[in-house]
Amino acid sequence: MNVPNASTFSLQFRCKKGVENSNSRVSAIDAWMVRTFLKSIGDPGLRVTLWDGKEVASGGAAPAAGLLIRDRGALRRLLVNPFLNFGDDYSAGRIEIEGGLVALLETVYQAMARTDGFKKDSDPAAFRRNQPKLNSLSGSRDNIHHHYDIGNDFYQLWLDEEMLYTCAYFPDKLATLEDAQIAKMDLVCRKLRLQAGQTVVDAGCGWGALARYMARRYGVTVRAYNISHEQIVYARQRAEIEGLAGQIEYIEDDYRNISGRYDAFAAVGMLEHVGPDHYQELGRVIDRSLTEHGLGLIHTIGQNRATPMSPWFLKRIFPGSYPPTLSEMMNVLEPLDFTVLDVENLRLHYAKTCEHWLWRFEKNVNRIQEMFDECFVRAWRLYLSGCVANFSIGALQLFQVVFSRPTNNRIPWTRSHLTGPAGEP
Amino acid sequence: MNVPNASTFSLQFRCKKGVENSNSRVSAIDAWMVRTFLKSIGDPGLRVTLWDGKEVASGGAAPAAGLLIRDRGALRRLLVNPFLNFGDDYSAGRIEIEGGLVALLETVYQAMARTDGFKKDSDPAAFRRNQPKLNSLSGSRDNIHHHYDIGNDFYQLWLDEEMLYTCAYFPDKLATLEDAQIAKMDLVCRKLRLQAGQTVVDAGCGWGALARYMARRYGVTVRAYNISHEQIVYARQRAEIEGLAGQIEYIEDDYRNISGRYDAFAAVGMLEHVGPDHYQELGRVIDRSLTEHGLGLIHTIGQNRATPMSPWFLKRIFPGSYPPTLSEMMNVLEPLDFTVLDVENLRLHYAKTCEHWLWRFEKNVNRIQEMFDECFVRAWRLYLSGCVANFSIGALQLFQVVFSRPTNNRIPWTRSHLTGPAGEP
Repeated sequence: MNVPNASTFSLQFRCKKGVENSNSRVSAIDAWMVRTFLKSIGDPGLRVTLWDGKEVASGGAAPAAGLLIRDRGALRRLLVNPFLNFGDDYSAGRIEIEGGLVALLETVYQAMARTDGFKKDSDPAAFRRNQPKLNSLSGSRDNIHHHYDIGNDFYQLWLDEEMLYTCAYFPDKLATLEDAQIAKMDLVCRKLRLQAGQTVVDAGCGWGALARYMARRYGVTVRAYNISHEQIVYARQRAEIEGLAGQIEYIEDDYRNISGRYDAFAAVGMLEHVGPDHYQELGRVIDRSLTEHGLGLIHTIGQNRATPMSPWFLKRIFPGSYPPTLSEMMNVLEPLDFTVLDVENLRLHYAKTCEHWLWRFEKNVNRIQEMFDECFVRAWRLYLSGCVANFSIGALQLFQVVFSRPTNNRIPWTRSHLTGPAGEP
Repeated sequence: MNVPNASTFSLQFRCKKGVENSNSRVSAIDAWMVRTFLKSIGDPGLRVTLWDGKEVASGGAAPAAGLLIRDRGALRRLLVNPFLNFGDDYSAGRIEIEGGLVALLETVYQAMARTDGFKKDSDPAAFRRNQPKLNSLSGSRDNIHHHYDIGNDFYQLWLDEEMLYTCAYFPDKLATLEDAQIAKMDLVCRKLRLQAGQTVVDAGCGWGALARYMARRYGVTVRAYNISHEQIVYARQRAEIEGLAGQIEYIEDDYRNISGRYDAFAAVGMLEHVGPDHYQELGRVIDRSLTEHGLGLIHTIGQNRATPMSPWFLKRIFPGSYPPTLSEMMNVLEPLDFTVLDVENLRLHYAKTCEHWLWRFEKNVNRIQEMFDECFVRAWRLYLSGCVANFSIGALQLFQVVFSRPTNNRIPWTRSHLTGPAGEP
């Protein structure tokens, strides 16, 4: 397992500092700062307690959740730049939550959504604030390394058996995460209408589960690209053990270097890392990769209106990431005259997936703290809780988009291929 | 039945003229003009015969179809402005087709799609060339009157029993048009998850079939808007006869004047007439009309890349119409933070629907010629054949888009509600 160093995992830096001045007396100015902060985020109805135990905001009759701010520095930083500093100070233990982090985040996000200051129109350059320049060939490698190469052992503690780190599909809400991830892979294969003997390119293959499922269940051969070294090593090893190495080639390279022609193009949980500046480039890659009657599928986190991600999320969790709107996504497809055949929004499935991940994460929290430190645990708890909250309240979407060339008349006539007996291996 | 006059149906004007100079001898210049014309549209491999019977282009080994150009004026006009004049001169009988109009149009469109001059990028202002300013309140009324008020008797000759003038849904390719239109209405109702007792607004209701189906089959009450007087008169009469008048209010008014709040918003075959300049206005209408947990559905002709419609189509058939790209459609939904739940592309279903219409049209061609004149028959044959061709070759799409408010968590969990036993009345 690779333990990240300061240069690749900048979260470490903030966590060195402890709580400051926690014995300082709470003043009227402190209470005013709390009220000002709450007002700035739309008065979400939170109980707020300060470092001396004093409750300076009651949150109304039935507050959904409460904040304990453990020093004046953290309070000041909330006023200065809440979107970066809440995350850092929560991670560092200077802010504590009462009543559940997911509930708190949902309450805050909903309050913000009702507040004029945050009710913005789409921002056509929203994604540029996400440092899209970093998504050059070398920039993408750094960004991906930051998140995905922090250790396969870590991800194995809270992902499913097959190591899928993308939205699952729960045909039944009570399905296990394992079953729901298999159902998701099968849904993707059905949408692509895979037939034995076909060739598939998987752009951004993670730990390689989808490629293995396609090869095993649908009898196709897959070339799977990924720039995360740790993931590729894992994927190759597992394919060998499962006897699938002859059907799958895992390639440690960028999507821009994809070569060959394929009956199907799949990008599952990959577009989030491309950056809208590079969508037309991706479209050209698909154009040169897809056969005349090939089908493509992009599965990505999305949003309704173009809005940048929070600076904390970008700095500490997923640098260079951006969830596109559907109209932004069309910049991949429309310039090349691709035809959109089907779009499905699996938003609530992603809320449930993240709940499963968060639950497994918490079950293994002691082990994770040993691997990293408490600050890491708190940062990732915040990240996973934020995902649950954002998908639950409708701030994030999950779009599955199926497309073909415009002249392809062998497209599915109805959706009947998406249900019924599973495809033949 | 209203027979159109010159001011509302400008096609009449061109048709007064007959064939000119048809005895004039074919010269080398005429043959050169034919070659130049064919080259300009990508050398589609057509046989071309001129007015003296001389074949001046063979179309290669197996020409898909042939053109007979009956006078020099028509040939010249093809060179000057083929996109307006082909339609007018075909309508006037100065151009004849051998081997089938649909086959000819498919061949020509495909050749154009391969030709650099037509391989354009999306044109961000494509729709402006479609006179969007005419889609003001009064302009829309004129545009709609031009097409939809030319006589219910006429449309009854070639539409299905329920008078649906939008893409049908053929669960089985061999289904009748009648069954496929009912299946389409049921699909719309299922996508909207209609429940007895709910309220629906139908924006642009045509002859009112969808509203009748919803009321009869799903037990909802419907307010249905339309600015075509002829259609509203028909719809009201039929609802009364069928005992549905208590559940449906047909309102002769513009979508911009929709009032009230509804559990469902449906716009089937209506967005084509709105014009992208008015999409945000439509979005605001939907926003004020939809309840908190309401679902909306827009069913519209679309395209992959923004391209203006042909000038002949705009002038003679559907003034002010425009089929949006998906990204253009998002201008209805994204500014208001609506969430796209589902997109289905029914392109090949529309090709089949238009084939049915064209076949029924031809079966009744003598009656239609008595109602209007030969020029009208030829113009409409060209229009319906062009629809078959455009949907067949993938130049036009049919998008069904389902959406909700972002915070609505009562959205369908899967697509299981779209299949299985029909909804309860």
